[in-house]
Amino acid sequence: MSRLSEDASGVYVISATPFTEDGRLDLASTDRLVDFYLEKGATGLTVLGMMGEAPKLTAEEARIFVQRVVARVEGRIPVVVGVSAPGLAPMRELAHNVMDQGAAGVMVAPPSTLRTDQQIYDYYESVAEALGPDVPFVLQDYPLTTGVQIATPVIVRIVQALPTCVMLKHEDWPGLAKITALRRASETEGLRRISILVGNGGLFLPEEIGRGADGAMTGFAYPEMMSDVWKAYSSGDPEQAHDLFDAYLPLARYEQQPGLGLAVRKYVLAKRGAIASAALRRPGPKLSRADIADVERLIERQTRRLQHLA
Amino acid sequence: MSRLSEDASGVYVISATPFTEDGRLDLASTDRLVDFYLEKGATGLTVLGMMGEAPKLTAEEARIFVQRVVARVEGRIPVVVGVSAPGLAPMRELAHNVMDQGAAGVMVAPPSTLRTDQQIYDYYESVAEALGPDVPFVLQDYPLTTGVQIATPVIVRIVQALPTCVMLKHEDWPGLAKITALRRASETEGLRRISILVGNGGLFLPEEIGRGADGAMTGFAYPEMMSDVWKAYSSGDPEQAHDLFDAYLPLARYEQQPGLGLAVRKYVLAKRGAIASAALRRPGPKLSRADIADVERLIERQTRRLQHLA
Amino acid sequence: MSRLSEDASGVYVISATPFTEDGRLDLASTDRLVDFYLEKGATGLTVLGMMGEAPKLTAEEARIFVQRVVARVEGRIPVVVGVSAPGLAPMRELAHNVMDQGAAGVMVAPPSTLRTDQQIYDYYESVAEALGPDVPFVLQDYPLTTGVQIATPVIVRIVQALPTCVMLKHEDWPGLAKITALRRASETEGLRRISILVGNGGLFLPEEIGRGADGAMTGFAYPEMMSDVWKAYSSGDPEQAHDLFDAYLPLARYEQQPGLGLAVRKYVLAKRGAIASAALRRPGPKLSRADIADVERLIERQTRRLQHLA
Amino acid sequence: MSRLSEDASGVYVISATPFTEDGRLDLASTDRLVDFYLEKGATGLTVLGMMGEAPKLTAEEARIFVQRVVARVEGRIPVVVGVSAPGLAPMRELAHNVMDQGAAGVMVAPPSTLRTDQQIYDYYESVAEALGPDVPFVLQDYPLTTGVQIATPVIVRIVQALPTCVMLKHEDWPGLAKITALRRASETEGLRRISILVGNGGLFLPEEIGRGADGAMTGFAYPEMMSDVWKAYSSGDPEQAHDLFDAYLPLARYEQQPGLGLAVRKYVLAKRGAIASAALRRPGPKLSRADIADVERLIERQTRRLQHLA
Repeated sequence: MSRLSEDASGVYVISATPFTEDGRLDLASTDRLVDFYLEKGATGLTVLGMMGEAPKLTAEEARIFVQRVVARVEGRIPVVVGVSAPGLAPMRELAHNVMDQGAAGVMVAPPSTLRTDQQIYDYYESVAEALGPDVPFVLQDYPLTTGVQIATPVIVRIVQALPTCVMLKHEDWPGLAKITALRRASETEGLRRISILVGNGGLFLPEEIGRGADGAMTGFAYPEMMSDVWKAYSSGDPEQAHDLFDAYLPLARYEQQPGLGLAVRKYVLAKRGAIASAALRRPGPKLSRADIADVERLIERQTRRLQHLA
Repeated sequence: MSRLSEDASGVYVISATPFTEDGRLDLASTDRLVDFYLEKGATGLTVLGMMGEAPKLTAEEARIFVQRVVARVEGRIPVVVGVSAPGLAPMRELAHNVMDQGAAGVMVAPPSTLRTDQQIYDYYESVAEALGPDVPFVLQDYPLTTGVQIATPVIVRIVQALPTCVMLKHEDWPGLAKITALRRASETEGLRRISILVGNGGLFLPEEIGRGADGAMTGFAYPEMMSDVWKAYSSGDPEQAHDLFDAYLPLARYEQQPGLGLAVRKYVLAKRGAIASAALRRPGPKLSRADIADVERLIERQTRRLQHLA
Repeated sequence: MSRLSEDASGVYVISATPFTEDGRLDLASTDRLVDFYLEKGATGLTVLGMMGEAPKLTAEEARIFVQRVVARVEGRIPVVVGVSAPGLAPMRELAHNVMDQGAAGVMVAPPSTLRTDQQIYDYYESVAEALGPDVPFVLQDYPLTTGVQIATPVIVRIVQALPTCVMLKHEDWPGLAKITALRRASETEGLRRISILVGNGGLFLPEEIGRGADGAMTGFAYPEMMSDVWKAYSSGDPEQAHDLFDAYLPLARYEQQPGLGLAVRKYVLAKRGAIASAALRRPGPKLSRADIADVERLIERQTRRLQHLA
Repeated sequence: MSRLSEDASGVYVISATPFTEDGRLDLASTDRLVDFYLEKGATGLTVLGMMGEAPKLTAEEARIFVQRVVARVEGRIPVVVGVSAPGLAPMRELAHNVMDQGAAGVMVAPPSTLRTDQQIYDYYESVAEALGPDVPFVLQDYPLTTGVQIATPVIVRIVQALPTCVMLKHEDWPGLAKITALRRASETEGLRRISILVGNGGLFLPEEIGRGADGAMTGFAYPEMMSDVWKAYSSGDPEQAHDLFDAYLPLARYEQQPGLGLAVRKYVLAKRGAIASAALRRPGPKLSRADIADVERLIERQTRRLQHLA
């Protein structure tokens, strides 16, 4: 399996973690979900993300799940594994385990206690050292959830000093100016150009690609939206990219609600046949009948609009 | 001037504060902006909101601005004034001043130090006592900015105990279940039914109206979106409401970016002729050329889509 | 090994985790440290606490460390193990492992995302269910670090509904009124009386015992302070308790500095011969020469003062 | 009245705001309190501090209070006024008002939304510009309350670029290394040496003076502690400084409890005859009988210990 590199682009889908109705890891659905993501245009997969249900897995379950995903992918696309942990020793242990299993790289979010520029830089220096020279990593910049604001000069410093940082998962909000600044630093000051994939449910995807993002890393239940927008935009047709994006935006917005969003996403994935059950492992939110009615209406309207576009 | 009451509905536009290019309060634009909001369907106005540029005004400027708005409105619609303050004495003073000037009510957000249910309830009890029986107030529930999460039972308790609380400005996110729960409490348990107007840039407006919201209180630069969605929905045509909403959503989403959003909003308001200058009083963000190109594209696409709908 | 119960009292020392100079787990020092704590009056031990270096251990190291401590203790006193984790499945797994190894109970702090009363109660209900009826747990109430404020009525509700909650680790600050309220609820309303051990480095120990605390659970490098204060106070001599407390207070205060404190504590433990090296596993703070001079002066003055008291 | 300068040293007492039992501003007690602070060794006074009851004053009351304090001081010591405000325009207005009334300088804490190094620097640059060249200001560094961590390089940059920043109110915790670093930067790199006065209730005063602090700016109800410790330390007798400090530490610690502390402080000030009533303006905490018993015991023990020292 090749290592994750600065050239990564397209759509790295943040994978859901399928459970059965009674809360066991659903490995059959895991296979089906991997197939689904590949069909819908995934150029990479990300598992055990901080915001999903990864923390609800035992260490053994997490190992089994990663193994299953990697086995099903069969090396066709890179698999990134979230390894954020309160301490460096368990992070290194998990990272080395998943790399041995065939992961292409890992993703690390900053602990929520970090504040000053120096603290954030020092943390990622320690991470890079703990992971070692053979483990490429993704810097996850997600202030809405972590509470940590990573200024552009800090990212520049990390990119300059730490060669194993090969990707920025960009979820700052608003963050368009940050993409512009990083791309300019590469063009005019020779900063190593790393991959930038955007998150936030893809809610700003066309504008972010316009600023120089290389695609998306997020888990919207219609990964083809991100894939098609990326293709249209990079083939020089931003208007078509926007047309596609706009068709999916009402549902993408609904799925991006904090807390509830994952339940919406699993509902849609189950409806689309990608997983057997929409169940979240407890504790987790449940959709009400009114929520489901909202989602159904949005899917119906989205289908009509896409037919109209085609 | 009549007092704000539980019957309020429609669109209470959160007014921008117009400045000249060199940073002075622009009273001529204030008149024009009031006219603009009225033309576009405002059924109320809210000024000196916490998230705008109100904190940049001196006490004297704030007084002049409120006076000007109230004078221009000429009693046609109610004017709500944000009076959130670190202490109750200055809050009461400001509230009584603006009520004397002709405001219909005031709006109060919780200080960011509050955490437990009891602390939040106690705070609003103190607020109601400080304001007195003649000042109706809006409870502003905006956890993304305040960091304070107000549970539904706390709102119920406030509504039961404090008759001067006549409106909830609902910006919890996700918050659809909260609206449902409050409306159910009125229908099945006899809770006083207060007005619920929603914020968050109107990004969930049709779904929120579907749950029982009475309209919106937010500052999107196309207030007619909120007004038209409200009218379509309340006249029994949710699909038309969604059609309208979807046409505006791409720009509404862009304008809702934290920090940058107000600069986008003022850019659009200036472009639409509602204010003379898009300038924010310093310190404040400035749109880059790339930001402006984004906004222009979104407006153009929105115009085309609306023509198509008409 | 008996289970932790509501009768626990005295001093549950939060154990340091000894490392060698080059960062390996130091098992010989672990034995020595257990002996030291027993000599100095520990009536219980707590390991893998959230605030120490537990997160720096790999899962395997944590297992080895707990095993070593439990083996050395030989059932003389109960061992409590911190099991706070982002998800319930890994928490349950760790809890059952350590109980099998001979732990007497576990300790759980709330995740920092919890805000409303109901969210906090629901979380502990899930915890109790996940742990099962045979794992007594300690509710860790430490808002300074977790950011979660647990109101007294929430604790009352937890104590009423969840019989496996047998102890409150009280580190609210200020929290004297909370102890008073909980004790009064037991005396006048029949609330089950659980053990309350206090933290915050013991900085309010005599006053907290005066309000009804049963002792301390914290890691001050002179555990005999807490033990002697507890004995003096419970034998009816609060003035002697204060005399002892005052002698240690200047150093206890210095050791309670956030971040730096653990380095101070290990310096003192090494100086007292309880561990071989004061080293913290990286990343961690290091004492400067000025810090060491401060500590040495405080120890010298403390020694003189204790001689004077004797 | 002379302006506040980098030479400031000794004890700038953070003044309480006296109210009558029924909540009116107590101007007679204001005079008495000023006299009391002068008698106890104040070399400066600070009023309208963020953490006290200043936010409970109306604008008019704040003006009257500042005027009264300045009048009573009669130019004998400098008066610093807290002017932290959500916006620069009201901050400038208040600052110019109080300077016209005879204040020597102002104090500004950062708004709690600031995170990155650049954001913090930019904010203080805006503050310095808004205040103008004739208003010396104190940089208040109090992360426990503001949530803003100001790294040493940011303070260095502020001192280099903004000549009107003449003092650091140091309440970082732990912050000893920060004092050391700033003093070293002056000694070895020629950084302008500003005054550093420490806060946190003086709980680390002797150690902080040892690192190069010029005294304290805090409100402990026994200002003579801070004054005497400063004198003993600066006259070359650190052991005597520690002896004095240790005698007051148990009460200082008790008074430093967040939330409750101000009620303790006013209780002691009233008991000492410095103000007529210990009342806090509502809403505010009230001491219980148990709290009062704690305080009385601590005062009694403190008195005995000081007699022993004398």
